[in-house]
Amino acid sequence: MTATLVDLKQMGAAAKSAARKLAASDSSVRNAALEAIADGLVANEDRILAANQKDIAESRAVGLDEHVIDRMVLNHDRVVAMADACREIAALPDPIGNVLEERTMQNGLDIKRVSVPIGVIGVIFESRPNVTIDITALCLKSGNGAILRGGKEALGANLVLAEIARDAITSVGLPTDCVQFISTTDRSIVNEMLQLDRYIDLIIPRGGAELVRFVGETAKMPAITGGVGVCHTYVDEAADVDKAVKIVTNAKTQRPTVCNAMDTVLVHSSIAGDFLPALARAKGMSDVELRVDGRALDLLGQIAEGARVVPARDDDFGTEFLSLIASVKVVDSMDEAMDHMTEFGSAHSEAIVTEDARTAERFLNEVDAAAVFRNASTYFNDGGQFGLGAEVAVSTSKLHARGPMGLREITTYKWVVRGDGQVRT
Amino acid sequence: MTATLVDLKQMGAAAKSAARKLAASDSSVRNAALEAIADGLVANEDRILAANQKDIAESRAVGLDEHVIDRMVLNHDRVVAMADACREIAALPDPIGNVLEERTMQNGLDIKRVSVPIGVIGVIFESRPNVTIDITALCLKSGNGAILRGGKEALGANLVLAEIARDAITSVGLPTDCVQFISTTDRSIVNEMLQLDRYIDLIIPRGGAELVRFVGETAKMPAITGGVGVCHTYVDEAADVDKAVKIVTNAKTQRPTVCNAMDTVLVHSSIAGDFLPALARAKGMSDVELRVDGRALDLLGQIAEGARVVPARDDDFGTEFLSLIASVKVVDSMDEAMDHMTEFGSAHSEAIVTEDARTAERFLNEVDAAAVFRNASTYFNDGGQFGLGAEVAVSTSKLHARGPMGLREITTYKWVVRGDGQVRT
Repeated sequence: MTATLVDLKQMGAAAKSAARKLAASDSSVRNAALEAIADGLVANEDRILAANQKDIAESRAVGLDEHVIDRMVLNHDRVVAMADACREIAALPDPIGNVLEERTMQNGLDIKRVSVPIGVIGVIFESRPNVTIDITALCLKSGNGAILRGGKEALGANLVLAEIARDAITSVGLPTDCVQFISTTDRSIVNEMLQLDRYIDLIIPRGGAELVRFVGETAKMPAITGGVGVCHTYVDEAADVDKAVKIVTNAKTQRPTVCNAMDTVLVHSSIAGDFLPALARAKGMSDVELRVDGRALDLLGQIAEGARVVPARDDDFGTEFLSLIASVKVVDSMDEAMDHMTEFGSAHSEAIVTEDARTAERFLNEVDAAAVFRNASTYFNDGGQFGLGAEVAVSTSKLHARGPMGLREITTYKWVVRGDGQVRT
Repeated sequence: MTATLVDLKQMGAAAKSAARKLAASDSSVRNAALEAIADGLVANEDRILAANQKDIAESRAVGLDEHVIDRMVLNHDRVVAMADACREIAALPDPIGNVLEERTMQNGLDIKRVSVPIGVIGVIFESRPNVTIDITALCLKSGNGAILRGGKEALGANLVLAEIARDAITSVGLPTDCVQFISTTDRSIVNEMLQLDRYIDLIIPRGGAELVRFVGETAKMPAITGGVGVCHTYVDEAADVDKAVKIVTNAKTQRPTVCNAMDTVLVHSSIAGDFLPALARAKGMSDVELRVDGRALDLLGQIAEGARVVPARDDDFGTEFLSLIASVKVVDSMDEAMDHMTEFGSAHSEAIVTEDARTAERFLNEVDAAAVFRNASTYFNDGGQFGLGAEVAVSTSKLHARGPMGLREITTYKWVVRGDGQVRT
């Protein structure tokens, strides 16, 4: 049941117990559950869309931001896409039970390292209702229980989606409670979730910087934090200016509300005079506000058309804008650019544009981030783009998983040792 | 400098900066540092042993437990062993810079997942001074900075060892501060360490259950907790009694003070009448106190010789004894045994003794622990025994590393993407 009066502990205990059965289930049964969810989504499209439209109407009535509402919208194509995602995940190889490493020791012990589910994964997310299905599908496939907490604005659709998922799980004979959705909208529930280390093995906050920081610091269980990207692109003195303009424009404007969107351009002083005016005049940049440091302002002061140019304040560096704003700083060396990234970045996605291979290799080697790019847009930091398939989150943690988290990243392993009476002396 | 007046933040900042240089260093230089440490240990044996003898004398004077003092003792052989460990680690393959995964996408992007150091690793440990050298060597080899905090009883020897390591690091041109030892003995320093998430990327507590729990709950940075093992051996109805006696005796008595020592025997009721008396009479068990449940007591009540038998109290289950004590419980099924492990175990090392392959496979599949064993002693859960070489700790965390943590387990990865101007549409 997706209870409205939440007894979180009871929910946790039920998820833990169900997850143990799920972990021991055959992959064909887990895949059948995913197919059943896909069928359920298609069969219940009208209910899903009706609930979604109600959510949207209520959100508009309370004056929610249009860009948040934009992310909530479901339609026929999006329901089909959710169903397709379930079927695609079903078709992937089983991520658990794989022998990752194997050896026979001199004493005859057979030692295998085998992939296993993590247990119960808690995910806290925001407005997009499709996340409910994506995470349910990835957790089911990988034998993990899931406790989901979505944004309150999308609650109506989320409850319908969770019910469809749970009905499908039940229909194939798996324990219904391996997926549970928290239906209370009381914010204090998040704090309570973070105490439940007995039942939740991993917590993943997907949301704003404040939520991510709070969860990282507060959770008693391990947390993989993601979704916050303060991303830089360094335009080197040996950059191809046309490429640099194209890459920066793409990284900033293609989807400004996502975590891999670029926030800050660092440009080498010897090329800034060519690059910055070209950037400011680029067609795709016309809606972007450039918050520029003093040296960039000198170079851009005369640009009347194209991008809007304003002087940067200190806090424009190190900020994730999530909108059509970019900060710009002129630097005198790659070292200065890398130091800036270390100080202001979130180790998410950092790029260099340069034709100089040695410079590029030094950058790729020395910059410490989940993903580093040469001559490509930071917007590529994504499970699908990296060939991993659907993702749970993009991790900026350094432990366990870094960057896009697909199926493998929500598994762990155990050592399985088979002997014949061996003892250690 | 191994400051006596610790400015932890300054130490952290220095370690972070040094670790960045270390990460970019050539593996030959890191290996040279390890060889130099080995040379330094051999050359300074007299100083090391003098400091150690002073530590021991002072510990005796304040009445420290003899088994703690026993763990502190250094001698010629142990100094040679530390030096050998450094040379062995130097000879291992470089754990960083390895391409773990690689693909070229249709758009031409070259995507590689590459192993990299974690950054700065904080380790809190207890009485054994050799840990200072082992962890220094593993961190250096893997390009990680290290901030070490050892037991106050072994401080004198630890400071000498840290100085030898730092001199060696300096001698090969690496930044001295990539290894730092906290010399203040004030306990509050641990709490301060746990706040330093800006400088310490991973904290590893090696010590008692209380320390491990405190660090896991308090640390702002990710923690990998280890070193606490409440380990069970389930003697199945289809067990070979001789093997079971041998395995249980080894797991309990070979080295009772370590985390992989067995704490509790669960025995199937249909074999308990054969097994328990044989265990109690086994030669190696004569010094072991068996704390047994009511059914076991009925079976063992007549045993006058051999092991001491006393009735178990509730808290004898779920306790890590770290001494020659074992609790014993009779169960009626493997499911009951597995449920007991879930409830009372610490997911460290769990074993089954059985000749029935299907039963064994179910156990190995369903029990969720860092290492699961069939017909072998839990005492095998160790990096060396698993063929991993030296270990930093034995992790009971589920994320990132599980079981013995060798070099690979103190690395992470980053995604390195090489393009030619690609943008994402």
